[in-house]
Amino acid sequence: MPVLASVAARLSDERPLAGTRVGACLHLTAETAVLVAALRSAGAEVSICSANPLSAQDDVAAALLADGVGVHGRRGDSFDQYEAGIATVAAESPDVVLDDGAELTLAAKPRLGGTEETTTGLLRLRRMAPEFPVLAANEARTERALNDRHGTGQSALDGVVRASNVLLAGQTVVVLGYGWTGMGVAERARGAGAAVIVCEIEPLAALEARMAGYEVMPSLAAAERGDIFITVTGSRAVINGEHFARMKSGALLANAGHFDVEIDLGELAAAAVEPPVTVRPLVDQYRMADGRVLNLLARGRVVNLAAAEGHPAAVMDVSFALQALSLEALVSSPERFAPGVQPVPPEIDTEVGRLKLAALGVELDRPTAEQERYRRAWG
Amino acid sequence: MPVLASVAARLSDERPLAGTRVGACLHLTAETAVLVAALRSAGAEVSICSANPLSAQDDVAAALLADGVGVHGRRGDSFDQYEAGIATVAAESPDVVLDDGAELTLAAKPRLGGTEETTTGLLRLRRMAPEFPVLAANEARTERALNDRHGTGQSALDGVVRASNVLLAGQTVVVLGYGWTGMGVAERARGAGAAVIVCEIEPLAALEARMAGYEVMPSLAAAERGDIFITVTGSRAVINGEHFARMKSGALLANAGHFDVEIDLGELAAAAVEPPVTVRPLVDQYRMADGRVLNLLARGRVVNLAAAEGHPAAVMDVSFALQALSLEALVSSPERFAPGVQPVPPEIDTEVGRLKLAALGVELDRPTAEQERYRRAWG
Amino acid sequence: MPVLASVAARLSDERPLAGTRVGACLHLTAETAVLVAALRSAGAEVSICSANPLSAQDDVAAALLADGVGVHGRRGDSFDQYEAGIATVAAESPDVVLDDGAELTLAAKPRLGGTEETTTGLLRLRRMAPEFPVLAANEARTERALNDRHGTGQSALDGVVRASNVLLAGQTVVVLGYGWTGMGVAERARGAGAAVIVCEIEPLAALEARMAGYEVMPSLAAAERGDIFITVTGSRAVINGEHFARMKSGALLANAGHFDVEIDLGELAAAAVEPPVTVRPLVDQYRMADGRVLNLLARGRVVNLAAAEGHPAAVMDVSFALQALSLEALVSSPERFAPGVQPVPPEIDTEVGRLKLAALGVELDRPTAEQERYRRAWG
Amino acid sequence: MPVLASVAARLSDERPLAGTRVGACLHLTAETAVLVAALRSAGAEVSICSANPLSAQDDVAAALLADGVGVHGRRGDSFDQYEAGIATVAAESPDVVLDDGAELTLAAKPRLGGTEETTTGLLRLRRMAPEFPVLAANEARTERALNDRHGTGQSALDGVVRASNVLLAGQTVVVLGYGWTGMGVAERARGAGAAVIVCEIEPLAALEARMAGYEVMPSLAAAERGDIFITVTGSRAVINGEHFARMKSGALLANAGHFDVEIDLGELAAAAVEPPVTVRPLVDQYRMADGRVLNLLARGRVVNLAAAEGHPAAVMDVSFALQALSLEALVSSPERFAPGVQPVPPEIDTEVGRLKLAALGVELDRPTAEQERYRRAWG
Repeated sequence: MPVLASVAARLSDERPLAGTRVGACLHLTAETAVLVAALRSAGAEVSICSANPLSAQDDVAAALLADGVGVHGRRGDSFDQYEAGIATVAAESPDVVLDDGAELTLAAKPRLGGTEETTTGLLRLRRMAPEFPVLAANEARTERALNDRHGTGQSALDGVVRASNVLLAGQTVVVLGYGWTGMGVAERARGAGAAVIVCEIEPLAALEARMAGYEVMPSLAAAERGDIFITVTGSRAVINGEHFARMKSGALLANAGHFDVEIDLGELAAAAVEPPVTVRPLVDQYRMADGRVLNLLARGRVVNLAAAEGHPAAVMDVSFALQALSLEALVSSPERFAPGVQPVPPEIDTEVGRLKLAALGVELDRPTAEQERYRRAWG
Repeated sequence: MPVLASVAARLSDERPLAGTRVGACLHLTAETAVLVAALRSAGAEVSICSANPLSAQDDVAAALLADGVGVHGRRGDSFDQYEAGIATVAAESPDVVLDDGAELTLAAKPRLGGTEETTTGLLRLRRMAPEFPVLAANEARTERALNDRHGTGQSALDGVVRASNVLLAGQTVVVLGYGWTGMGVAERARGAGAAVIVCEIEPLAALEARMAGYEVMPSLAAAERGDIFITVTGSRAVINGEHFARMKSGALLANAGHFDVEIDLGELAAAAVEPPVTVRPLVDQYRMADGRVLNLLARGRVVNLAAAEGHPAAVMDVSFALQALSLEALVSSPERFAPGVQPVPPEIDTEVGRLKLAALGVELDRPTAEQERYRRAWG
Repeated sequence: MPVLASVAARLSDERPLAGTRVGACLHLTAETAVLVAALRSAGAEVSICSANPLSAQDDVAAALLADGVGVHGRRGDSFDQYEAGIATVAAESPDVVLDDGAELTLAAKPRLGGTEETTTGLLRLRRMAPEFPVLAANEARTERALNDRHGTGQSALDGVVRASNVLLAGQTVVVLGYGWTGMGVAERARGAGAAVIVCEIEPLAALEARMAGYEVMPSLAAAERGDIFITVTGSRAVINGEHFARMKSGALLANAGHFDVEIDLGELAAAAVEPPVTVRPLVDQYRMADGRVLNLLARGRVVNLAAAEGHPAAVMDVSFALQALSLEALVSSPERFAPGVQPVPPEIDTEVGRLKLAALGVELDRPTAEQERYRRAWG
Repeated sequence: MPVLASVAARLSDERPLAGTRVGACLHLTAETAVLVAALRSAGAEVSICSANPLSAQDDVAAALLADGVGVHGRRGDSFDQYEAGIATVAAESPDVVLDDGAELTLAAKPRLGGTEETTTGLLRLRRMAPEFPVLAANEARTERALNDRHGTGQSALDGVVRASNVLLAGQTVVVLGYGWTGMGVAERARGAGAAVIVCEIEPLAALEARMAGYEVMPSLAAAERGDIFITVTGSRAVINGEHFARMKSGALLANAGHFDVEIDLGELAAAAVEPPVTVRPLVDQYRMADGRVLNLLARGRVVNLAAAEGHPAAVMDVSFALQALSLEALVSSPERFAPGVQPVPPEIDTEVGRLKLAALGVELDRPTAEQERYRRAWG
């Protein structure tokens, strides 16, 4: 993670988080452990709970604990245990939080604010209008370019392939939702040789999808055409009983949204004539009354985490660098930030972009003196 | 132009521009004539000058004149004539303006404001801080999705092919500038079978280009690799003597930016050992001292207008619908708009997106009651 | 045309065609004039007729005539005049022929054989089983890679855009036929932002199209979905009355196959309630009884020639180099060739590939001694 | 595997292999077990050895054994054990063989011939000129369209991602070899957002790669540019010490060719200053004297098998259907086949294509009577 390493080197020198209590609700992975180490070397005390029991790696949790970090959550926790982890971290009154879903933020009400990493979390926070600032890490341009579009684009399809061993070329992939993540999933599906259909409710996103060459149609029409369905809407029950009734036998159903509510699992169970058969470890096959079978991947949980490795390290590198720099800004210059959801400051975004390009070995032009004069005169 | 037709039908009923003086500086094309007719049927008096002497169609000008519209400019006008056209329209004190380059806007200082259609124009207006509102038509999402990215992407390459008859497949195309237009040019060049190199000075745009799979490098390095160079930077002399010295013999040089300053024509002439030879109507071949030849397309003027038909009608349809609705808003609700460059109101953007999708025959999902409840609860 | 120039330089030295009578039926373009010059400098006497009255450039014809070449045909010739041109060249008993459609070959029965440039021509020749060899220039790998796939792919869409000024992004393009040319048209349409549907009757070609990510369906189903239809089948009436009855209003119909029989023009006229209106120079609009309008481009003639410039020079460069080297082989080593349609000798194909790569500035690896040993041992 | 199922249903009725001894050298996977069952239900006695100790699934082997099939080989076998398995099956004098690498074929010399599944195997067989027919399953069009291009294209990149967790977007991927498999790897890498460089020694393949938009250059030049290297040449040591000396630190090295000889492992070990460190289960990191590290994936073995699941079931479906039908033809009509490597009969290829399209739910046009007449008249 060269971008985070470069940020961490400076933070370790300057220790801008000395004495700061950081609460975090993140996926307990090896990459997260590197972020926690960076924050601690910057002077922070860190306490962490798991953003998703499916993604928690117990060896990571154990290593963090051994290292003096408060860790609350482990792989396979029940929903109650997951909630308890959040409550515990919130009860420690962190000064700032790092969040992935907004639940910790809303419980902890951190004095100096925090960062939020998911669209779902930001929707909720915007509605709640908190009295402290929350920096929308998820909406930074570097996040969009890496995490949402390319990171989830690759890993969601990777999850589908690992779960099912399907050959994507020649299949029809239906992508529900054309935000940044849906755009990435659609690009990668097309890049893998699939024909892609996009379903959207928002006219401008739908128009962009259509201009990018995808078919765009209502989801009930797409239900009859798709071989593989991937939900990335942030909404719920976007695939439901009406869709199941129309789908081809053998269809694969996967969710790449944060919560497991996008495919209506209750209606799927209700539509089936018998309990599902687990035909591969992460493929549950539901038989309909007319003999068709529908295959649910990863139990409807976020498929890139549940069936693959989640985001590539390169994605977390950028994401965590953004979050570390955002925490530094919240702690160092609290006066700069009004309450509520705020953008990550553009200079942080640009700095992360610059570090990432360096990591990729890409050099840029610098404007010439003449171009600078022109810009001053005309721009 | 079904989107503009749909807008025009309503404007003609409601006549919200009755008595309004509209000044326009636009390309004098058949599509522009349709916009002018729509504004006049909404009640406006219109006076127009030509945004570019190369693009003016004299039959269009004649028809408008015959119809009672003030028309100032014709094909092949000198720079002085072009400037005089702008001055004439400005002198008529229009209430609102439609502009393409900001020159009319800055000269006319319209009471109720106007719209601007180019990045270059907006840069200038932002610097000038006018005391009236200017709606950035060019930055509306429907404009980005249609005009900049897809419209110019297609037409710039179309201009290169018509001017030179080059086979794009197998060529290396260097795109200088990766704004929305550069993105479109790069996409279409790759889609035509070219290997694409992007040159940028802005880290976030450069990162996006790299993540989209393009090579990104400084322009002097790209100068040695390219077969075709296309400038879309809004800056000047981004290809200059240092580049000419490194280019391969036979390289094609085209500009798709608004002004003919992006390729340094003075340095090109200075680098050549003899006056250029016109080897096809829009290809001037410059011979260097070492025997290499460089081919300038369309004299460095905006290649999609000078060598092709400019924007497809589908693009102008959206663009002019946005501008007509923006003028209506400026006239109907002047109190809504603060001075300076302002975004087109999102509801106008969405309305145009909706009309365009209808024109493309694309239907969308509507959220279910359950999804609406979820959005209210969580969003 | 660097590849042909390189071939011509050697032929001019060696004069292998000294005293040979060459008959040619080709498009009368500037590129053809270069080929004729190369053959003449190799020692041949050349007589030429026009392969298509629409593509003939009269200035080229005049220059060839002035230069002592027999030229039969000019722009806008009637069908009878076209046939008379072929008869005249055939009557001169050429030793070898260069053909584009097989009509000259079948009329002239050249002693040493000839080359043929179109799929349609080869189909006919295979059926006729001539008593002399015909080298299938059209099936050489360099032709497939350049001419059919990339050359016609680009120029067919270029023809559609020039004729209609359509914005391809966001449109549904139906490609009828998925041979090499259809593959190229489909690739370029997708690369231009269109959604692409392929119609095929041959299972293996259809499977390849589907695996490449295109929708594949029967043409009557596609008729309801397409915005733009392009025929490249080599068959006739593949778009006919049944299709016209189902098409959306505003559909564009173009043919990129050799003959103007792929769109059934008789049934189109019969389906219309009035004579077509020419709304742009190469767009004839037919009105159906239910009010829908269908737009025929370039009168159903091969759209890349009739509405654009035909093949880019880079394509003709390779094609003509192949043909010049094929004629040399037919004349120098007639004993190598059995009667009937034969492949271009692979060493000619490889030589042209090598010259073309050199022209593109591409260097290749050479196998190491160790790799050669491995190949000898294992390969 | 619907295609094989459809073939198997007929074979089970007709029992064309009754009394035939079939020897097989294949990957011991679940899909292979289905093929074996199909052949046995057609009447054959089957004996099988493992084509690769890394890919053998011991539960599959056990189930086959339990079912009465002779199985020789298990996961992790030594090279000697692998050779012994081949010798055992060969010693049983099979009438026909199914092979994957030609070793069994050359050892068994089957009376009626066999099928071969790899380019490497075919190269060897062509050199050896056997006295019995070998049907080149690997060169059937359905194999090319599914197995080589799309199957290995997807699974090779899948192997790279699973081994390394790399984000492909923004990386430079160097593909060595542009046969069908290399074409597939290059397409999928570009489709995943990588910039792709192709290295080739054969001019026509190189030209096709270049026309498809890839950069093409000698491998030593590519060595300095790549982030990820994938070999698919069928040759040996195509990445060797000269390349290691030029590569960027952090480069990933993967082989997708049949044998683990394409990356020179001896020169890699020699270039390193210490034994490799296994940083992920299938990533061995070699440190060079100058501090750079190079990462070898899957020990240089075929990465789609060693690091992922090998071919998707959809690929094996087509491949095994081809092989089953080929064995049937060899046994039923031995007189049709001359000795040596022969193509799979086209009607088998077309039949498999037709069954695969049916499995994908794709319908085709049938030619109309008029089109048939035209074809008879002109074709």
